[in-house]
Amino acid sequence: MKSTLDCIPCFVSQALKIARLATPDERAHERILREALWRASKADLTQTPTRFGKGILRLVRDLTGQADPYLVIKEESNRLALALLPAWRERLRTATNPRLAAVRLAIAANVIDFGIKGDMTAEQIPEALESSFAGPFRGDADGFFAAAEGANDILFLADNAGELVFDRLLLELLPHEKVTVIVKGGPAINDALKADAAAAGLENWVKVMDTGCDGAGITLEDCSPEFQRRFSRADVIIAKGQANFESLDGCGRDIFFLLKVKCPVVARHIGRPVGSLVLHREWKK
Amino acid sequence: MKSTLDCIPCFVSQALKIARLATPDERAHERILREALWRASKADLTQTPTRFGKGILRLVRDLTGQADPYLVIKEESNRLALALLPAWRERLRTATNPRLAAVRLAIAANVIDFGIKGDMTAEQIPEALESSFAGPFRGDADGFFAAAEGANDILFLADNAGELVFDRLLLELLPHEKVTVIVKGGPAINDALKADAAAAGLENWVKVMDTGCDGAGITLEDCSPEFQRRFSRADVIIAKGQANFESLDGCGRDIFFLLKVKCPVVARHIGRPVGSLVLHREWKK
Repeated sequence: MKSTLDCIPCFVSQALKIARLATPDERAHERILREALWRASKADLTQTPTRFGKGILRLVRDLTGQADPYLVIKEESNRLALALLPAWRERLRTATNPRLAAVRLAIAANVIDFGIKGDMTAEQIPEALESSFAGPFRGDADGFFAAAEGANDILFLADNAGELVFDRLLLELLPHEKVTVIVKGGPAINDALKADAAAAGLENWVKVMDTGCDGAGITLEDCSPEFQRRFSRADVIIAKGQANFESLDGCGRDIFFLLKVKCPVVARHIGRPVGSLVLHREWKK
Repeated sequence: MKSTLDCIPCFVSQALKIARLATPDERAHERILREALWRASKADLTQTPTRFGKGILRLVRDLTGQADPYLVIKEESNRLALALLPAWRERLRTATNPRLAAVRLAIAANVIDFGIKGDMTAEQIPEALESSFAGPFRGDADGFFAAAEGANDILFLADNAGELVFDRLLLELLPHEKVTVIVKGGPAINDALKADAAAAGLENWVKVMDTGCDGAGITLEDCSPEFQRRFSRADVIIAKGQANFESLDGCGRDIFFLLKVKCPVVARHIGRPVGSLVLHREWKK
């Protein structure tokens, strides 16, 4: 998905937010914001929104020396999600349709995202998750499970720390011995890294591998050859979150995108309103 | 009031919004946005937010030839406000405290503002006005009326088209023969011009004069010498809306600001939460 003019104000806000997370130094905030504005003024809009975001993260790292501004937020998200997990596990177990509920929850948990608006505190997550779970859903959950059950090699492209804790409840309903969970190879906003997969209890239960690069979403040409190989050969690819959709939509592979629609640009692109839970199959074969 | 880093993403969004109002040409939107980003990257943050906004409006005018992108919106706001006026006049007449209700309404009507968020359509105004009127109020309305009643020369710095229709209900409770309503000298987002004062029925009832310049808010050094003279000599100055507060706060004159707090930057500055109705006296004598 290409960037649009509407993405630009969002890039600018994000730069300021990340700068403030990285350092309390206001002169650094101003330098980062001015540099982000200058870059945005020359931005190549044919690139994906995630690619621009990656540049901002690197800029912040280079100017502040802070490689992972979201580290504390990610750790807090993991703790909070783990505290909420038992109640949700029970709720899913007793749901009329546990599979559909698990899909909805995995998508809804995407609300644990400090990347886009950044106006939610960790304390607000339980209620936000509840209301997100109740949002309108569209997608073919049966088709999704059928495809996964017939597969030998499933790539699960994770999104955020914390969210990944709830993904486990979905993975438990899939042939998880065939699943490789893909996390990022380095800090990318609040995207899950290997440490977050470990915190979510996924290590020694499913395979966990990283992209070999540090951008949000999946920018294939930046990823390790090993990941690229796995990506091109997998039977089923499950991609969580908006950044994966932004970066992989139209890439030519058959992908199940599980995402909460968070901005008007993606809403227009995918044809569902902001706030929707979407299981969208990118089917180009 | 100086600009802050938080004002910058807002400037950028506003540039895109005004560009789209001015022309359907998407290449022009992109040119305007890129130019606004470049200017923002070099912006002097000691200038008021309204001054930056003025530059954007001029940029749009120069690049599109469209001098008044908000003309249709202003005309629609006037029509809608006039349609709502009789019911509100009756409501104020029968209010427990008609003066306080008139102050609240004049401030609440500031919600008819397409300048900041731009996400309200004309159809949404009646409900928005109702909810705005019900918002928390802080200010000394009695002190305000006492000052106005003791004055010989009252300047009423109007804000938006449409809003000005409701201002009339407040002006009717003031010694209006001593009031001069000040509108802008040229297009400034949806700020009221002389045509809007006429549409609101103010002509031939109070004096109407313009600032002699086309910026939102009041940037004194850009205004006509005649307005500057009136401004320096008036007994009482009443300034409606956030842009007037942003541009006149700290100017050294005794001013009654009547505004709805619309953004976190002003909220911090004035010490009242976003959404509040505020009658704030700038008292420096």
